Amino acid sequence: MELVSENRSFGGSQQVFKHPSNTCGCEMTFAAYLPPQAQDGPVPVLWYLSGLTCTHENAMTKGGFQEHAAKNGLAVIFPDTSPRGEGVSDDEAYDLGQGAGFYVNATRDPWKTNYRMYDYIVSELRSIIVDNLPVQDRHGITGHSMGGHGAITIAIRNAGLFDSLSAFAPIANPTQSDWGRKQLSAYLGDDESNWADHDATLLLEEHGWKGDLLVDQGAADQFLDLLKPEALADMMARRRQPGQVRMQSGYDHSYFFVNSFARDHVAWHAERLH
Amino acid sequence: MELVSENRSFGGSQQVFKHPSNTCGCEMTFAAYLPPQAQDGPVPVLWYLSGLTCTHENAMTKGGFQEHAAKNGLAVIFPDTSPRGEGVSDDEAYDLGQGAGFYVNATRDPWKTNYRMYDYIVSELRSIIVDNLPVQDRHGITGHSMGGHGAITIAIRNAGLFDSLSAFAPIANPTQSDWGRKQLSAYLGDDESNWADHDATLLLEEHGWKGDLLVDQGAADQFLDLLKPEALADMMARRRQPGQVRMQSGYDHSYFFVNSFARDHVAWHAERLH
Repeated sequence: MELVSENRSFGGSQQVFKHPSNTCGCEMTFAAYLPPQAQDGPVPVLWYLSGLTCTHENAMTKGGFQEHAAKNGLAVIFPDTSPRGEGVSDDEAYDLGQGAGFYVNATRDPWKTNYRMYDYIVSELRSIIVDNLPVQDRHGITGHSMGGHGAITIAIRNAGLFDSLSAFAPIANPTQSDWGRKQLSAYLGDDESNWADHDATLLLEEHGWKGDLLVDQGAADQFLDLLKPEALADMMARRRQPGQVRMQSGYDHSYFFVNSFARDHVAWHAERLH
Repeated sequence: MELVSENRSFGGSQQVFKHPSNTCGCEMTFAAYLPPQAQDGPVPVLWYLSGLTCTHENAMTKGGFQEHAAKNGLAVIFPDTSPRGEGVSDDEAYDLGQGAGFYVNATRDPWKTNYRMYDYIVSELRSIIVDNLPVQDRHGITGHSMGGHGAITIAIRNAGLFDSLSAFAPIANPTQSDWGRKQLSAYLGDDESNWADHDATLLLEEHGWKGDLLVDQGAADQFLDLLKPEALADMMARRRQPGQVRMQSGYDHSYFFVNSFARDHVAWHAERLH
């Protein structure tokens, strides 16, 4: 992998890398924050999966995670949200194609060639991180919106690989939402039985999560009808899933919301990873 | 003034306004963060002046000031860096014209019609803020790069209006730098005797600053030759000016640097304004 940029941040280092991806069949970019503690030995990893339209850069510059990661001794990985490039299929809509990979392995044309973000996160990028950065093979995962969906679904399906889980305003029940049905249909086909493995609420119903789960949701989020936090909250309660859904008064869907609760989420993961 | 956007942030509110400016002869945009304490009564104001190419938005989204302002009970104002719009003169260079007002009142064509950022900050926007937002008429000022230059020069020349002062990597001696000579010549003309009122080092030599002064500077800043922190540090020492220039190992000129020390600067101002 190739270092694209490096900036000192809170005593640690905010780095951006690019690398050829076998999984996605294109060049991929990701950001990695290494806290000061990484100079003395490997640190646990917190994955932050971003939402629709984002790249590796949005949360890196606007999320405010570095201060808390530096304090708590966690590395933070910010992957991109889809394959990219001129040869990669795209769509005019903001919520399909580039910037909208939905953390699945597409099985339908034209997407199946490159859109394999599930395997990219779970396998390829994970190996790259562990092999090349001063980190422990010990991981927590969080994300925002489409990335919250990615975090919960990836963690539950790979409970042996992740030891802490949280989400900011996740797309909680995509099989029942226009943020989900459109994309799952395009990427996986119309057989809805193939969708359940990519629905946080349905996965929680079937498997639960081995640990406790922190979800923050803005009560003034402009996308509440698409996110469906009530489905996740209902399922957590019915399944007696340890954890909490915090409905935060006045907060919307923006990075101002993510930024405001970054401290809590980083501390949550640090307590469970150290 | 008209509210453009409003986002809950750290229990307070991040707002963006636009308004017709008599001083600049165009519509101007600024951002204001109001901490939770402003709901109970007026709070002091911290002004953050941005650098070349920035608008009101950069530091608002990437500076990380809200968390610390919320903790310390300060409002933070993020003005734009120049007049803007189709009818406003501009230049192809990034460092002249729109995005590069340099916090002066231009006296030369074509700039003198709109480029009056000094009066805009000191008088017009100050009045708008005090008249329309839940703030005290009590002000601190800081800024980054060109904005650090603006903060120091405006505060020293208006010591009755500002009670605390700091800067991030300020253009410290613009009369001796290519970041300064070009702009002061264009905006004020070639008579260098008119430039001294816009040079932090020269103003400090003549007037000092009534309080103590905090300056942070990245030791790995890619623009050190243009910023000339040594001129300011030398003058502070020679004049026995209370304060400190902190040379921060490894930090560059980016918002990762600003973000890393936002906490210290907000606390510095809060201690002096409350």
